[in-house]
Amino acid sequence: MNEIKIFSPATVANVACGFDVLGFALKEVGDTMYVRKSDKRGINITQIEGFNLSKNTFENVAGVSALAMLESLDINHGFDIRIDKKIKPGSGIGSSSASAAGSVFAMNELLNRPFSKDKLVEFAMKGEAVASQSEHADNVAPAIYGGITFVKSTDPLEILPLPVPEALFAVIIHPLIEVKTSESRALLPSSVDLSLAVQHSANLGGLVHALHTNNYELIRSSLNDLLIEPHRAKLIPYFSQIKSTMLKSGALGCGISGSGPSVFALCNGEDIAERILENLTKDLSNASFEFDVYSSSINNRGIIIL
Amino acid sequence: MNEIKIFSPATVANVACGFDVLGFALKEVGDTMYVRKSDKRGINITQIEGFNLSKNTFENVAGVSALAMLESLDINHGFDIRIDKKIKPGSGIGSSSASAAGSVFAMNELLNRPFSKDKLVEFAMKGEAVASQSEHADNVAPAIYGGITFVKSTDPLEILPLPVPEALFAVIIHPLIEVKTSESRALLPSSVDLSLAVQHSANLGGLVHALHTNNYELIRSSLNDLLIEPHRAKLIPYFSQIKSTMLKSGALGCGISGSGPSVFALCNGEDIAERILENLTKDLSNASFEFDVYSSSINNRGIIIL
Repeated sequence: MNEIKIFSPATVANVACGFDVLGFALKEVGDTMYVRKSDKRGINITQIEGFNLSKNTFENVAGVSALAMLESLDINHGFDIRIDKKIKPGSGIGSSSASAAGSVFAMNELLNRPFSKDKLVEFAMKGEAVASQSEHADNVAPAIYGGITFVKSTDPLEILPLPVPEALFAVIIHPLIEVKTSESRALLPSSVDLSLAVQHSANLGGLVHALHTNNYELIRSSLNDLLIEPHRAKLIPYFSQIKSTMLKSGALGCGISGSGPSVFALCNGEDIAERILENLTKDLSNASFEFDVYSSSINNRGIIIL
Repeated sequence: MNEIKIFSPATVANVACGFDVLGFALKEVGDTMYVRKSDKRGINITQIEGFNLSKNTFENVAGVSALAMLESLDINHGFDIRIDKKIKPGSGIGSSSASAAGSVFAMNELLNRPFSKDKLVEFAMKGEAVASQSEHADNVAPAIYGGITFVKSTDPLEILPLPVPEALFAVIIHPLIEVKTSESRALLPSSVDLSLAVQHSANLGGLVHALHTNNYELIRSSLNDLLIEPHRAKLIPYFSQIKSTMLKSGALGCGISGSGPSVFALCNGEDIAERILENLTKDLSNASFEFDVYSSSINNRGIIIL
């Protein structure tokens, strides 16, 4: 096999009660990428459609993760990468992670899988760092593993794939505004009250237990962001309206996707997802910004070969 | 049935990564209690053996929890309670909880179980509050439920019994010194770094996942107390020596039991528990304090009728 076409999914990180550790992959939203072996050594980003991003290998997240993998290989050829980008950069649903994870996943397939999933995550984190100025795995892990992933630690890397209840659906609303990651990071508190830290840990532990026991009501009582949302919500116009609409429409819980501006909801079943979509569209019809909304089941496979 | 004899177990709260939410019950250590219906209304503590504790119903934790239950009942008789106390008060392994939980468990049995386990925990929390000045459930929940319990919330009460890997063993060392709960509480930090709160949540989530997946290595990497131990360790003489001996002897993890001074370890199998016991006895042979050490499997049944 010399050429491969893949789908690399959008991902939701943080997931309300899992700041910096939880993420899940979407089934219906993602980029298409084409990777082929090239006689020329190194990594060549040949084409990017959809958005205006640098094709300089050393500046592009897909290029940087690919280079990280290349350093671990002793081969006399290179790779050409073409990206059909559908996830808007800066939307908060893992646009850079999809590219960073996609290139290394595809290269690994073309090379007959010399690397484990964990190793792919490590390479992808190097690419991710170009976009977010720090190596984190809460988006690249679900892109590569699929499902809901819990990154217990990045050093050493400990990724725990969590069970996904069958009827779990996600809804995403993406307000078409720009939120700078640096601005979003600056709003993080440096410390939190001990009692809040304890409640936060209880919510994360509760969600892990809920996923293992298929307990939707416990998912509901666990999906609360006590640490970050109170500080970052102000970046997202109509956040309380969005949240209120999602919850009254039957969402199990909702929160800021990654560092925003997208907002996600999780719900039990496609019917409720559709109802949330409809009500969001209705309730925000007079909003002063444009937005995309969509629903998706959870993508249990991660990146797939097309 | 007019009279009942029960075993009410000692319990370890906090469990390193579960400050204020986790607890487990011991099989080999606990109090014996005798409760019988009495023609006289109200609660009468008839006898307490082992330690010098108040027999005044309104000051005794077993009395106060029993009174809380009595308020929810419309009956024309009362109960006599006799306690054969084996868990030393102030040892940090749930001495007051064993009494508070034992009285209401026994009364519920004598009345043919009108109350759920959750309701018993609520009554027991009222008794517990006499000893610790606050209503908490991390000791009474495992006493009543058995096994390892995760108190996700006390208001509303959400108790999640966690799966217990079969070979899990506990070792307890109880330095015979007094640690005042008030002193121990005063050492708690009011706030913690955000990054520490995140790591703490990851450890708790990791332990919950580990128990569901029978993953001993993940139990090992999760049993870390980042929040409390750095502040409270100074209360316990030779703490770092105790911890070092436990870990080098093969413990999966260890930490302060409740608010101390007892220290617990969890390990995989009775052999390792015995090795930890031996090494503790050896390494602390020149210590300036006396101590009790013992090992126990996890008590999966909680309070039992003898």
